[in-house]
Amino acid sequence: MAESSRKFPEIQGGGSLMIAWQIKGKNVLVVGGGEVAAGRILHVLNADANVTVVCPASGLNPEVSHRVSRGQVKHVDRLFEPSDLDTADMVLVAVDDPAASTVIWKLCKERRIPANIADVPPECDFYFGSVHRDGPLQIMVSTNGKGPRLAALIRRYIAKTLPKNAGNAIEAIGELRQRLRKIAPAPEESPQRMAWMTKVSNTFEWDQMCELTDEDMNNILTFYSDNKVPSLDELKAMRRDSGQPKSELFDGSFGFSVGA
Amino acid sequence: MAESSRKFPEIQGGGSLMIAWQIKGKNVLVVGGGEVAAGRILHVLNADANVTVVCPASGLNPEVSHRVSRGQVKHVDRLFEPSDLDTADMVLVAVDDPAASTVIWKLCKERRIPANIADVPPECDFYFGSVHRDGPLQIMVSTNGKGPRLAALIRRYIAKTLPKNAGNAIEAIGELRQRLRKIAPAPEESPQRMAWMTKVSNTFEWDQMCELTDEDMNNILTFYSDNKVPSLDELKAMRRDSGQPKSELFDGSFGFSVGA
Repeated sequence: MAESSRKFPEIQGGGSLMIAWQIKGKNVLVVGGGEVAAGRILHVLNADANVTVVCPASGLNPEVSHRVSRGQVKHVDRLFEPSDLDTADMVLVAVDDPAASTVIWKLCKERRIPANIADVPPECDFYFGSVHRDGPLQIMVSTNGKGPRLAALIRRYIAKTLPKNAGNAIEAIGELRQRLRKIAPAPEESPQRMAWMTKVSNTFEWDQMCELTDEDMNNILTFYSDNKVPSLDELKAMRRDSGQPKSELFDGSFGFSVGA
Repeated sequence: MAESSRKFPEIQGGGSLMIAWQIKGKNVLVVGGGEVAAGRILHVLNADANVTVVCPASGLNPEVSHRVSRGQVKHVDRLFEPSDLDTADMVLVAVDDPAASTVIWKLCKERRIPANIADVPPECDFYFGSVHRDGPLQIMVSTNGKGPRLAALIRRYIAKTLPKNAGNAIEAIGELRQRLRKIAPAPEESPQRMAWMTKVSNTFEWDQMCELTDEDMNNILTFYSDNKVPSLDELKAMRRDSGQPKSELFDGSFGFSVGA
């Protein structure tokens, strides 16, 4: 028992459950229109939510006003009313009124709506962190409430140390998988496709993947039928303009015709 | 308008809402007991949830069995039944049965219980990412479903490039705030305390904070009454054993008697 238990990861309590919430097309109600609300609004717009801000117009800060005037968020020009919750899938409260906040929190809990009351940890189903974004790559730093400023510093440190075009590596691998499915579409070939994609992942260091170009990906695919994967050096030698510095990265467009 | 809009961050759609969910003491139902379930269970145990695993005993993998036998999770030795949801605050499904999974997903949505059906993105309120943990510091890497293997590689890259004892920096700053409150407890002094803590954060690079010792923190506090913050070099010179290499970091204990 003691022997076998050593194989399994030890539990490290005291953390949060770090998750990537899906709110595309869902309704997020933001109560308040100040600086904190503006930050929350950006987070949820980046996740493609439909956002409604409830706040008297006089309380909107310039950033929130800007988003209202651009039609990026819907604005309800008054204080919160309980019926605002009728269509809400998530509620974010950022007002300087603890009593009003608590009332909204309780209503949300009655209706089982996930909610975050800014600066009131016991009235939060979830906390926010500091987020680095690079295309499909998102990295959240959380200090579990112990140092929000530090979270931002650590996030900037990570952003600085990540290779350039880290997002490109993810786009490239996703694109490679799509192109592979086009040239080898048979469902019964799925295990081979998966095994080969794993081989691709194991062949390149992930920061090498940041350098893969559109041309490279088509060259890699020519090795699939032999169940081989070329090295980065082999790929570089295959580039039509090899010998010259290559700067054009895969541009993320999906219109390339494979097998043409 | 065009002028002012340039000040505000552009929206970058297509992301997730990255959040740190609070499930301490909440009930998480895990349906299934295989390898994927084992990973989910570790995530939620690290966030101090009460975990119930519903799965016939024959379907438990060694890690899940280990956690059951240690009493880390409750085990219900049968297939899922709808009444299992009665006390669930969150549901994680990891079974190789898409039809059964969909039934559970729909029941969760009727009851507004946040749920994740492994490998079925449309049946997920949230996705998991790859998480680095160092004490109070948690860093989640998400590729928004485009490259789970890459997420793990990027997470390892970040873990390698972070300064040692990154978690210590957070503990240290949290501990400093607590000790400050003890030596300057007056509520009306809150603005001064906050301003001084900001000054501390601005004085040190965050990776310097990883090096702060217990002794350093008490030395820093002696500068509070003058609203000053010493540099790291000044602090090092103040160490009783300065001149000798210092390896003992702040150990995270909170029993130190301030002002004694």
